[in-house]
Amino acid sequence: MTKLLSFLSLSLLLSPTLHADALRATGDLGIVIEREAHSALIVNTSQKTQLARIEDLGDLSHASVVFSRDQRFAYIFGRDGGLSKLDLLQDEVSHRIIQGGNSIGGAISQDGRIIAVSNYSPPGVKLFSADTLELLADIPATYGENQQSKTVGLVDAPNHRFVVSLFDAGEIWVIDATDVKNPHIDKFKNIGKQPYDALISADGRYYIAGLFAEKGLALLDLWHPENGVKRVLENYGKDDEQLPIYKMPHFEGWAMTSDYVFVPAIGRHEVLVLDSRTWQLVKTIPVLGQPVFVMARPDGRQIWVNFALPSNDKVQIIDAPSLTVTHTLNPGKAVLHFEFTPRGENVWVAARDDNQVIVYDTQTLNEITRLPADKPNGIFFSARAHKIGM
Amino acid sequence: MTKLLSFLSLSLLLSPTLHADALRATGDLGIVIEREAHSALIVNTSQKTQLARIEDLGDLSHASVVFSRDQRFAYIFGRDGGLSKLDLLQDEVSHRIIQGGNSIGGAISQDGRIIAVSNYSPPGVKLFSADTLELLADIPATYGENQQSKTVGLVDAPNHRFVVSLFDAGEIWVIDATDVKNPHIDKFKNIGKQPYDALISADGRYYIAGLFAEKGLALLDLWHPENGVKRVLENYGKDDEQLPIYKMPHFEGWAMTSDYVFVPAIGRHEVLVLDSRTWQLVKTIPVLGQPVFVMARPDGRQIWVNFALPSNDKVQIIDAPSLTVTHTLNPGKAVLHFEFTPRGENVWVAARDDNQVIVYDTQTLNEITRLPADKPNGIFFSARAHKIGM
Repeated sequence: MTKLLSFLSLSLLLSPTLHADALRATGDLGIVIEREAHSALIVNTSQKTQLARIEDLGDLSHASVVFSRDQRFAYIFGRDGGLSKLDLLQDEVSHRIIQGGNSIGGAISQDGRIIAVSNYSPPGVKLFSADTLELLADIPATYGENQQSKTVGLVDAPNHRFVVSLFDAGEIWVIDATDVKNPHIDKFKNIGKQPYDALISADGRYYIAGLFAEKGLALLDLWHPENGVKRVLENYGKDDEQLPIYKMPHFEGWAMTSDYVFVPAIGRHEVLVLDSRTWQLVKTIPVLGQPVFVMARPDGRQIWVNFALPSNDKVQIIDAPSLTVTHTLNPGKAVLHFEFTPRGENVWVAARDDNQVIVYDTQTLNEITRLPADKPNGIFFSARAHKIGM
Repeated sequence: MTKLLSFLSLSLLLSPTLHADALRATGDLGIVIEREAHSALIVNTSQKTQLARIEDLGDLSHASVVFSRDQRFAYIFGRDGGLSKLDLLQDEVSHRIIQGGNSIGGAISQDGRIIAVSNYSPPGVKLFSADTLELLADIPATYGENQQSKTVGLVDAPNHRFVVSLFDAGEIWVIDATDVKNPHIDKFKNIGKQPYDALISADGRYYIAGLFAEKGLALLDLWHPENGVKRVLENYGKDDEQLPIYKMPHFEGWAMTSDYVFVPAIGRHEVLVLDSRTWQLVKTIPVLGQPVFVMARPDGRQIWVNFALPSNDKVQIIDAPSLTVTHTLNPGKAVLHFEFTPRGENVWVAARDDNQVIVYDTQTLNEITRLPADKPNGIFFSARAHKIGM
């Protein structure tokens, strides 16, 4: 008994140290999606290490991730309608539901209380409690004569709103979720044929949708909704010559710096540079392949570009002041995604077919380290918690 | 013995739950400075509660705070040369040193490894290990014929640099800390008389210093250092008529949105609006007092302004699209500082002489709650960890 008590006392004496070692902060965490293994890695961007591997997350092709405002939880939106809430402090699935049959993309509300998911089937948007994943509102994407539309390009916007595009309807909906059980919807109709993806500017002001079945982009200024949706970049879209398109560019990655918007051309070996105030084309920058993601380092000084087949082993870097390509890197086979650390000193690059994540120093462009990952196809850091539209 | 073991087993069974309750993420934490009590509160911005109070932090007048990249630690720069490292997970002082005799302001490097402090005495900048607070480099602010200058307006910049102004020398120094024990310094001389404060734009490109002894602002474009320091806003400065100035405006708070820069006029009841590309004056907005902090909600849709005596019980809100004051609030006596939550849904306002922090919903402008605090004079949220220049 005495011995046991001594042991207990000793444990108590030691516990502050043990406790301290076990403590984990959440500002430098991230998620790496392993598509084919249906799993996700929890990583630390300071130590550049893997902390844990979480399995059984369903179909993670085209998966995306948002984070709770305390950065403790990651919400993973799967292609199969799975919605998984991961606990980054306990390395486990906290909650998981199958919320739809065919899903693409999700968002978290400004105050962190609501998770929104856009579904192909059932066609519409669902709102869930970020805490429990309980369904709070089901918004069918009904248009015209009781028709149903797939929903795409879902993002959060200031004032507890979400914005989404209706692919089949050619509409943009602004969903005010202040009263979450009775969301108010402003519908913008005839915005163009088949919006297929969209983004919101970092300040939450401009919502921009790409159109699959016609040229140009649909632009909604959320500061002036009374002006309606305007068409910009009239020549943007699939080429008249119908060149083969190996992969449609992603919208999320558009680089919007203080002066310019950098846009991946569709099907062409070009990055388009627009004036961020007028949305007019300023320059066309030749690149080595069909661009997919065009993302700015957080300081806007560099723009990194990856490519569709057959150039998907390379990354090019555009120098913002000169608007020219200054470097080409060869990270590995099938570079599908990359993510900058919050202040931009590093970038993590997913090379799916090399089963690796490569970490670069963005100043020297030297490789810092590589982490093994099983067919990585997406990287998401917890600093997204603090960013509008992420 | 059996009873004790049963108790132990029970504890072990319960421990996962207890452990989970005790876990704390760091994305939604903040620090409230209590100047006269020499203490700081650790707060949670989701629950809007005080988590802990840390005492014995020395002279906290004009104190500022930066955060480690994992958001676990807050570094508090005291007026008396004290540098305190607070552990936000363990509610305690992790390290504390007196690094100088008279200090104003500090910064953390892009990679989170270096803490920099600007001192009046001894005149210069010191670099410390963010981990241990060990001194890594001592950079005396020597100029001319072996003269010494006070240093002010210290900020971090991309590529592991710091930028600082030399009040007595009229110089701006760009300190490259890549090789931290042998920092490389680029000196810009004759930038104007008595730079007294400065800021860096959110993208880390523009460094702007105010001049105490002459008109105008000194502007350094870090993308084009070869162009040197230019003078902008030629009429900015103390008024010729030498109106009484109750408080010099702070630079940190300048609101830089995508289109405009909002600048507190010195000694006048005005906020100046500049074009963010040309730095030319676009408009002058009348306000009810001498502005001190002029800060934009993270989406840039609102600009909040507080004031010097005798209007320091009020806050005014400028509507960005119309560039007019739309609301006046009365938070309480001696509003010294305020901080927006990362996505901007709330703002926390420090009313020093009411011993309260007031939390507002920025959409409705309704008061959400009040927290008691002992003479609060500064509020800093952990999301700053992810922002250049913060």
